[in-house]
Amino acid sequence: MLEIIRSTSNDKIKHMALLQTAKGRRAESAFPVEGEKMVLEALAAGLKAHFALVREDCAGLEAAGRLKACCPCYLCSAPAIARASDAVTPQGIIAAFSLPEPAARAHQATVLLDGVQDPGNCGAIWRTCEAAGFDQIVFAGSAADPFSPKVVRASMGAVFRIPVSRAADAAQAVKDYRAQGYCVLASSLSGSPFFQRPSAGKRYVLVIGSEAHGVSQPVLDLADHVLRLPMAGKTESLNAAVAAGIMMYDLFLKEGRGGC
Amino acid sequence: MLEIIRSTSNDKIKHMALLQTAKGRRAESAFPVEGEKMVLEALAAGLKAHFALVREDCAGLEAAGRLKACCPCYLCSAPAIARASDAVTPQGIIAAFSLPEPAARAHQATVLLDGVQDPGNCGAIWRTCEAAGFDQIVFAGSAADPFSPKVVRASMGAVFRIPVSRAADAAQAVKDYRAQGYCVLASSLSGSPFFQRPSAGKRYVLVIGSEAHGVSQPVLDLADHVLRLPMAGKTESLNAAVAAGIMMYDLFLKEGRGGC
Repeated sequence: MLEIIRSTSNDKIKHMALLQTAKGRRAESAFPVEGEKMVLEALAAGLKAHFALVREDCAGLEAAGRLKACCPCYLCSAPAIARASDAVTPQGIIAAFSLPEPAARAHQATVLLDGVQDPGNCGAIWRTCEAAGFDQIVFAGSAADPFSPKVVRASMGAVFRIPVSRAADAAQAVKDYRAQGYCVLASSLSGSPFFQRPSAGKRYVLVIGSEAHGVSQPVLDLADHVLRLPMAGKTESLNAAVAAGIMMYDLFLKEGRGGC
Repeated sequence: MLEIIRSTSNDKIKHMALLQTAKGRRAESAFPVEGEKMVLEALAAGLKAHFALVREDCAGLEAAGRLKACCPCYLCSAPAIARASDAVTPQGIIAAFSLPEPAARAHQATVLLDGVQDPGNCGAIWRTCEAAGFDQIVFAGSAADPFSPKVVRASMGAVFRIPVSRAADAAQAVKDYRAQGYCVLASSLSGSPFFQRPSAGKRYVLVIGSEAHGVSQPVLDLADHVLRLPMAGKTESLNAAVAAGIMMYDLFLKEGRGGC
């Protein structure tokens, strides 16, 4: 850490700010990770750090020391690092990491987000994947960018451990899964009762629909089972992450995965 | 609608903006409800409208007609109504309603938020209450303000239908519930397995802890059952609304409420 950055228009600050945008992340195949805890989790997951910004008062943090050992680190003033951060309350440490490799191993339980747009919901579902023993998440169609700062934050580190893939066309992805022998479950208000469903077998894909439109019609047409959570009262639907959590935990328990 | 408001410092605009603050809502015992759908739901629930702001291009909406029949309505320019709104994308119609009365009927299944602070989580849990057949929600301790615009939005109308109460001290509220014969269930990472719990009986309170600190120690000390959701992987916890949803749906099914 030889350099102290005080200018908000410094190249390193602008570079990190660029990674706060979807376009920047795509161009660089990298994404920003902010905060002591999240940086330590990214390092523990073996992700490659490109460079890091550390606020002057945070140089003593464990994450700063670890980053210093593996990538260029730049000390910054508070206003400079605030410019590079997406957070309302900047954490004092931000590192650019390579996007995780899509895993090569076979997947058993996958959740597919068909256009889920709220980054808080996407991150919460990713977090639930890990807890419920799901081993892959797919962001399909108009779903949020999986490496946007809000998704990363809401995932609480699952983003570093549960492999993700993207699919431009959700229906095509579902077709491919079915061809590989996966059972595809999709939720819809016009489906049959979720808790009385037949077994999904050993390999399955649970499709979660967008907040506004639910699962898209081409995907519903392709699914093996279209299912509906029971709802009392005048509720028309549940929050997408809550609905996903209820279904994932029930699959986890009924299909005997995870061993908890 | 005799008056057209174009000034952002008009009294009606400032009055509605005041209701966007917790202090203003407390002082006036009223809260703002924004958007065609939510206003119609508030009216359907029988809440009393005090006054309404309607953007010029929204005067033809059904909600505008209904409000006109029951309270003073003021046509506004787009910049004026934007000043009165909390939303990033103002909906063109905002009405001030009386806070709902706490219900007098006996409750059976209650969810108590022990310091849950994220308004999106609080609203999502309220929404789940209705779907899972819970008949009361309690905002306790440092939980979000139940009538803040973000909670109201995330509740998707449950705020108008599922009675709420507030408790300054979560532990005292839990003591009172126990004295009335309720079974109190609280979640904690050091609890016993949630899905193997004994029956909670006919009347119970499920306590959801804050995002940062979980259920507070005095409440854990008082609870009949301290329970833990199983988690695979390195996940330390689930999103508060997701965890609440999984537990509420399991209680709903196992304790046979709701009849779905």
